[in-house]
Amino acid sequence: MIRVAVIGATGYAGAELVRILAGHPQMELAAVTSRQYTGIPIDQVFPALAGTVSLACEAYAPERIAAQAQAVVLALPHQVSMTVVPDLLDRGLRVVDLSADFRFNDPDLYASAYQPHLVPELLTETVYGLSEIYGERIAGARLVGNPGCYPTCVTLPLIPLVRQGLIATDRIIADAKSGVSGAGRSVSLAAHFCEVHESFKPYKVAEHRHNPEMDMVISREAETPTHLTFVPHLIPMSRGMQATIYTQPRHGVDLANVWQCLGEAYETAPFVRLLKPGQVPSTRSVRGTNYCDIGVCVDPINGQLILMSAIDNLVKGASGQAVQNLNLMFGIKETVGLDNIAYPV
Amino acid sequence: MIRVAVIGATGYAGAELVRILAGHPQMELAAVTSRQYTGIPIDQVFPALAGTVSLACEAYAPERIAAQAQAVVLALPHQVSMTVVPDLLDRGLRVVDLSADFRFNDPDLYASAYQPHLVPELLTETVYGLSEIYGERIAGARLVGNPGCYPTCVTLPLIPLVRQGLIATDRIIADAKSGVSGAGRSVSLAAHFCEVHESFKPYKVAEHRHNPEMDMVISREAETPTHLTFVPHLIPMSRGMQATIYTQPRHGVDLANVWQCLGEAYETAPFVRLLKPGQVPSTRSVRGTNYCDIGVCVDPINGQLILMSAIDNLVKGASGQAVQNLNLMFGIKETVGLDNIAYPV
Amino acid sequence: MIRVAVIGATGYAGAELVRILAGHPQMELAAVTSRQYTGIPIDQVFPALAGTVSLACEAYAPERIAAQAQAVVLALPHQVSMTVVPDLLDRGLRVVDLSADFRFNDPDLYASAYQPHLVPELLTETVYGLSEIYGERIAGARLVGNPGCYPTCVTLPLIPLVRQGLIATDRIIADAKSGVSGAGRSVSLAAHFCEVHESFKPYKVAEHRHNPEMDMVISREAETPTHLTFVPHLIPMSRGMQATIYTQPRHGVDLANVWQCLGEAYETAPFVRLLKPGQVPSTRSVRGTNYCDIGVCVDPINGQLILMSAIDNLVKGASGQAVQNLNLMFGIKETVGLDNIAYPV
Amino acid sequence: MIRVAVIGATGYAGAELVRILAGHPQMELAAVTSRQYTGIPIDQVFPALAGTVSLACEAYAPERIAAQAQAVVLALPHQVSMTVVPDLLDRGLRVVDLSADFRFNDPDLYASAYQPHLVPELLTETVYGLSEIYGERIAGARLVGNPGCYPTCVTLPLIPLVRQGLIATDRIIADAKSGVSGAGRSVSLAAHFCEVHESFKPYKVAEHRHNPEMDMVISREAETPTHLTFVPHLIPMSRGMQATIYTQPRHGVDLANVWQCLGEAYETAPFVRLLKPGQVPSTRSVRGTNYCDIGVCVDPINGQLILMSAIDNLVKGASGQAVQNLNLMFGIKETVGLDNIAYPV
Repeated sequence: MIRVAVIGATGYAGAELVRILAGHPQMELAAVTSRQYTGIPIDQVFPALAGTVSLACEAYAPERIAAQAQAVVLALPHQVSMTVVPDLLDRGLRVVDLSADFRFNDPDLYASAYQPHLVPELLTETVYGLSEIYGERIAGARLVGNPGCYPTCVTLPLIPLVRQGLIATDRIIADAKSGVSGAGRSVSLAAHFCEVHESFKPYKVAEHRHNPEMDMVISREAETPTHLTFVPHLIPMSRGMQATIYTQPRHGVDLANVWQCLGEAYETAPFVRLLKPGQVPSTRSVRGTNYCDIGVCVDPINGQLILMSAIDNLVKGASGQAVQNLNLMFGIKETVGLDNIAYPV
Repeated sequence: MIRVAVIGATGYAGAELVRILAGHPQMELAAVTSRQYTGIPIDQVFPALAGTVSLACEAYAPERIAAQAQAVVLALPHQVSMTVVPDLLDRGLRVVDLSADFRFNDPDLYASAYQPHLVPELLTETVYGLSEIYGERIAGARLVGNPGCYPTCVTLPLIPLVRQGLIATDRIIADAKSGVSGAGRSVSLAAHFCEVHESFKPYKVAEHRHNPEMDMVISREAETPTHLTFVPHLIPMSRGMQATIYTQPRHGVDLANVWQCLGEAYETAPFVRLLKPGQVPSTRSVRGTNYCDIGVCVDPINGQLILMSAIDNLVKGASGQAVQNLNLMFGIKETVGLDNIAYPV
Repeated sequence: MIRVAVIGATGYAGAELVRILAGHPQMELAAVTSRQYTGIPIDQVFPALAGTVSLACEAYAPERIAAQAQAVVLALPHQVSMTVVPDLLDRGLRVVDLSADFRFNDPDLYASAYQPHLVPELLTETVYGLSEIYGERIAGARLVGNPGCYPTCVTLPLIPLVRQGLIATDRIIADAKSGVSGAGRSVSLAAHFCEVHESFKPYKVAEHRHNPEMDMVISREAETPTHLTFVPHLIPMSRGMQATIYTQPRHGVDLANVWQCLGEAYETAPFVRLLKPGQVPSTRSVRGTNYCDIGVCVDPINGQLILMSAIDNLVKGASGQAVQNLNLMFGIKETVGLDNIAYPV
Repeated sequence: MIRVAVIGATGYAGAELVRILAGHPQMELAAVTSRQYTGIPIDQVFPALAGTVSLACEAYAPERIAAQAQAVVLALPHQVSMTVVPDLLDRGLRVVDLSADFRFNDPDLYASAYQPHLVPELLTETVYGLSEIYGERIAGARLVGNPGCYPTCVTLPLIPLVRQGLIATDRIIADAKSGVSGAGRSVSLAAHFCEVHESFKPYKVAEHRHNPEMDMVISREAETPTHLTFVPHLIPMSRGMQATIYTQPRHGVDLANVWQCLGEAYETAPFVRLLKPGQVPSTRSVRGTNYCDIGVCVDPINGQLILMSAIDNLVKGASGQAVQNLNLMFGIKETVGLDNIAYPV
């Protein structure tokens, strides 16, 4: 049993980690920390855990964490993560960080999207935790920067195509939609039930912080500087994320080439489900799971290629992928602890 | 008081017509027809109407309609409308048709998207009921083909720009999202609460019937054959529609030109609200109203122009625009009966 | 035109007041105040108001209010209202207060449910604003304490029956359910979208502050001390309130007596709709309106009387009833400005 | 591995059975039948199953079922179940039936609530599948009539109290609320998204078919004829059920007695979670799980006892309890295959 601590366990990503790890047959939830709920049993914060998880929330104390756990997952805000990671690594822990702090290898790029990095020297080491793409490097990593939810949803269908040069890299448009849990458990008017329910709107249009992250990934994989036009929208639902991506196939590339490329790329990826022609991904079918469903279509009139993907923003978009990465890091089969099926409704 | 009959009053568009007409100070609801509920008081079908509308649903009988009303709005399925319109016109009634049957002037275009037209001779006469664009012709029309909800939402922000040649007409992408009421009140698994709730998905990708309709409008206004790539999505909510449109400004065109163009085009249009820079349209702000809110943004990195619009699919996208057209046809101020405000929540 | 100021216009009740008053043909929205949004145009706080209401939020200044308005509606938190009401009355304004501060005539009762009253001398004067029951006294009042949403929904079906002694006053049980907007626009974890959506639960079981208020009303009308067992529940929706009330008919009283009693009591009440036998009230049918729908049923096996009512908590349960009271106070027909119909969906 | 067939696998209860059995480590999904989808892979009907369940839907053929399976769960409509059960029993299969057909031992009682029974002789044998109460008899049963969702939710908190005579059996009131999935996957206007969303209402007031079922159970356990006044309500959500039950403690019984009684009754019941004083059950905490959460409160003014319970109507209220019963019938630990935790959101 691998002993894992969750740092920041009382946000939504943290609570999902607790839920997944509590059911993981080869991992043991060693400790949970929370500033806000220190000393309080976590099943009091989340009554759903009653009868299953009896840990109390601890204050963060690295020496205690190191004594209790072999690995930690950090579900902390950006900028906080980088203040605790060096110490945890020094104590021999392996770290998966859900914040943006260790997603970038280039400190300047991080600085331009967030703020100056406090431990830039660690950025040469950190591995971007997109499990299907960087699985081998993740397996050997001490420090994994878990991808953002939007980058996961948007780049998984694109990477095989740009790697093979099947699509043009200018004018890629990603129109993405997310449920509210992506904004976390902190209270805000934007997350107030009445402000969200029975409404739909774009937000942070062409200025979302996940944009540079996906640009970084696609540029690297396309081996050419690439910028996606990215518009996120807020869906009146709790969890689920869907992206519709518009791109242009290169000359001579047809739908069959695209299907084949994606099929080969994800043939052995247990969590990427390539849909059949004519099928579209729905957030329903991946809700609560670590799947990324991908569908493909071509506009019959102008040949525009339309890629569609769906994930659960809290699972494949955060905590599930973190556990998938832990599995890779500890030589456990990738799907262990993550094999639940979405409810039919 | 203009006497108006609603044909097909017990679907959602029909019920909205009843609601709007019941509160219209210069129109009188003369009759309501329904095949399914013939003989039943409409406030039994929609208890919300109790105390306000006491009409019973009639079987459709053109001679009775002609005796009772000066105008009719048809909220019938495609293909049914065209079987009743000629008779209604012959009896001297003015007709606004919510179906697709009289939106096209070209019978071949109609036939390719729907089925062969039964009264193609009327297509030379019918006026496309996009009130802000064709108001003058609508005012004088006997027969108005009320626009589809998606074409209303997508073409209103585009038309002024293509008219002035500010944007490229190839590669226009319209990513649109609609609440469930757009599918009507007929029962279907697709509209089952549990199939929709807490889920989001694209549907009819690049094959929705509203696509040729918006292509027709934009081609006409751009004076060049134009095809939009159009992907609709289903939002887990009842009413509201939002479109995010990606297009390329022509060389030398900047954001200021776009704002100015739209500002001038809709300066006197009471139902088009051009948002301020930085604001985004939300379906919340137009819910239950005849407004179309429009926002504009440019991707700062690649100059991609992003147009965003929001309407209520049942009001501006159907019944409200029908009443707006009736106002125009009968010389009533455009906003009469349509001046309600969206609920704050 | 009666000039009305809304004090505390940027909560949900305040925003509803603005919406209703903006469409009121005999009232004019004279001023809106907000601590949080002072100086900001209210259509920036609520974009739905764009094009209709162009007032900016003012800081609260009683001399300015008195110069601008003849009446004020207070949408302030409990305890704040009573600090401003005396001054407003002294300046000759007529006041409808949405808080609990002026609902009780007995300062001790108020103190036991809330806190010591600061101006107990005004409690002898204040009139409880349940329009259908106390309309005459409201018409002549300077100061009206607008009822809570739950008391409105629960007492309207009960009062005629206890007045006539048709039901036992012990063991009245009110099981009530409310949408989230009842908790206001303040941010809180309890109102976070993800905490509410797709969940249902009781809260403040037998300890809600509206319990003493409804006890007070029923005790007065029954002319005997009466306590209702009251359990509120939170519905995953924005607006709407429904109560199912269980009570025992007195010996010899049958369903016909109950229907007749309610029918006579509300014969001339435009906003109380007594449903037909077999019909049940739905929050849908009253959404956005000032109606209270009431249905009645008897358990055929044990004779238990079941009363059911539905209101919109923000309209009849707050701002609509406030405007109804203003209408009464200024000799305007009760329904003016409140005659909209609920959307069919 | 126990081989289990699901008859009627493409409704919501059937799909939940498939989901639960697919993850059950000691059971194997042997066959799935569906009239509507015969020949179609079930992961095409429910794309969430892709990659996990590859069975195709079969037509119902008892000889094939008998060859493939040791046990069957029937998720068929009332009245259909009883036409197939005798044959399945004759072939040596053990049967859990989700319909009402085998919940009653008295054919007259069944007939009065449903229709004349076709195999009344089997009613002497059938065991009512309320696992926590009749576990021993279920373990030895050939035929189990799985309880209705409402009876499960309402009787679990009541049975220990009536068995010990702690509460009066007259005037028990059960005010219950259910998500829409309880109505099944069949299309109907009542289940149309737009009819349900953002609305709340009672239905089948004092005439729901689950009423005689719960009366039967409580009468048996109280050893006195007992009738509950029962009013169900429809919640605008997919899954979850909550009941608030009002009852009178017998003379001398206080809250401590009630807690103790329930605590002892369910001390070893893994799926009944007795909440702490002051806690209320929420459907959120049991969503997707087989738990029944129970809370208790006393009205401090009149001593009314208030019991509150919450279940997932599709799991503990249907398919989960069916699997729990199968576990009991095959000597498997009760919680196996049912140990998942509700999502935090």
